[in-house]
Amino acid sequence: MSKPSRVLGVLGGMGPLATVDFLHKLIEETPATRDQEHIPVIAYSVPQIPDRPPAIIGRGESPLPQMLEGIHTLKRAGAQAVAIACNTAHFWYDDLLRQGGLPILHIADAACADLVTLAGQSVQRVGLLATQGTVAAGFYQSRFAAHRIDCVLSSDHDQHTLVLPAIECVKRNDLALAHTLATHAARNLLSQDAQGAQAIVLGCTEIPLALEYQASDVSSRCIDATRALARACVAWWRAT
Amino acid sequence: MSKPSRVLGVLGGMGPLATVDFLHKLIEETPATRDQEHIPVIAYSVPQIPDRPPAIIGRGESPLPQMLEGIHTLKRAGAQAVAIACNTAHFWYDDLLRQGGLPILHIADAACADLVTLAGQSVQRVGLLATQGTVAAGFYQSRFAAHRIDCVLSSDHDQHTLVLPAIECVKRNDLALAHTLATHAARNLLSQDAQGAQAIVLGCTEIPLALEYQASDVSSRCIDATRALARACVAWWRAT
Repeated sequence: MSKPSRVLGVLGGMGPLATVDFLHKLIEETPATRDQEHIPVIAYSVPQIPDRPPAIIGRGESPLPQMLEGIHTLKRAGAQAVAIACNTAHFWYDDLLRQGGLPILHIADAACADLVTLAGQSVQRVGLLATQGTVAAGFYQSRFAAHRIDCVLSSDHDQHTLVLPAIECVKRNDLALAHTLATHAARNLLSQDAQGAQAIVLGCTEIPLALEYQASDVSSRCIDATRALARACVAWWRAT
Repeated sequence: MSKPSRVLGVLGGMGPLATVDFLHKLIEETPATRDQEHIPVIAYSVPQIPDRPPAIIGRGESPLPQMLEGIHTLKRAGAQAVAIACNTAHFWYDDLLRQGGLPILHIADAACADLVTLAGQSVQRVGLLATQGTVAAGFYQSRFAAHRIDCVLSSDHDQHTLVLPAIECVKRNDLALAHTLATHAARNLLSQDAQGAQAIVLGCTEIPLALEYQASDVSSRCIDATRALARACVAWWRAT
C-alpha cells in the first residue's frame, strides 16, 4: 500500500474536547466510503499549556513555546501542514508560521470563506462569539472589514456572564449549561434592533460544542469556524 | 508551566471515526475541570493501511509495517505508552510490543476488567460482537476462559448479514443503518434461549458507534471495549 501523499498535523489540546470536535468534523466533511479514503492526521493534543486569553492581555505566561514544540513535533512526525483547533491561539499565527516551519491553515480565513458562501455577499453585520483574547487580537475584525462587513461584539456584560462561562462549562464537559449560556449570548447578538447581526461566527472552538448540544432557534444563523477549518483542510488535502 | 509527566500515544485510523470516539471517551473518563487536567495525547490516525480482517485469514497484505511505523512515530514524538483504537489490530499485539519499543495497553484486558466489574463475578456466558479477524485471533476467548466465561459468538449468517455490514456502515458514516444492524446482532446473541449471552462485549471499535447512535434495549447489557480502554489509559496516566 502506497504511503499517504499528505499528512495533516493538528495542534490541539486547547481544549481537548474542541480538538475531538475538530477531528470529528474533519471526518464528516471528507467524502469517503472506507477508512483509506480519509485524511491522514497526526494530532498533538497536549493541554499542559498556559491559557491563551490571559497571555494576550498581558496577564499570564505565553503559550508560544509549547505551541512551537507541538508544531515541531508534528513536523518531525511527518505533517506537511498544520490546523490549529483553537481560535485564540491564532493570536500567535505569525510567530508560529515563522518559527514552526510548516504552512498553517488560518481558522479565520476558513470561517470568512464559509461566511461569504453561506450567508451571501449582501451580509453587512456579523456577530462574533469569541474569547476576549480573540476579540483583542482582532484577526476576525480585519477579515470582516476586508469584506465590508461590520463586526458586532457581545457587550462586556454578556462576555463575562454568558460567553466566558459557556466556554468554561465546555472545558469541564457541562454541555447542557454551556448550551443555555451560549444560546442566550447568540440571541443577544442577533436581536440588537437595527444593530443586530445578520449572522454569527462561532469564533471559539468550545462554542460550537455548546450550541450543538441540542437544536435551537439560532443554529441556522451561525457559521461554525471549526467546521470551516475542517472544510479548508479537506480542500488542502484533495488539492494534492 | 511544567512538562506533562506522561504522554499517551494513540495508534488510530482503523478507522478514523472509531479513533475520534476513543479520544472522546478518554476525555469523558478523565476527571477534569480545566484543560490542563486532561491527559496529554498524540494520536497517529493514518488510515492508509491494509484492512486487518483479510490479513488475519491470509487473504490480504499485512498492516504490521504501517502499524509499526505509527508506533515508532509516536515514540519519537514523546509517547510513553500506546493505546490501539482497533480491536482487530491486537492480533499483532506481540509483534507490536516486541518491535515497537513501547508498552501497549491491551484493549481485551481492559474490556475483561470492565466485564468482571460491571457484569459481576457470576457471569458465565458472554457474547462477543467483533470482526471475523478478532474472532479468529482468539484473544477475547482466551481471556474469557481465564475467568471461566463461555464465549457466545454470532452465527456465520449474522456475522455476514449484520455484524460486518454494521461495521462497514460506520466506516462510511451511516450510523442509522449501522445501529439497526448492530442492535439486531446484539439481540440475537442475548436471545439464544439457554445458550443466550448474559452480557456482550463490543469487541470492535466501530460497534459502540453503531449501538450508541440512539438508545436501545440492549445497551445496558453491553460492555464497550473502547470505553474500557479509555478507562485503562486514565488509570495508567494517574498512576504516575
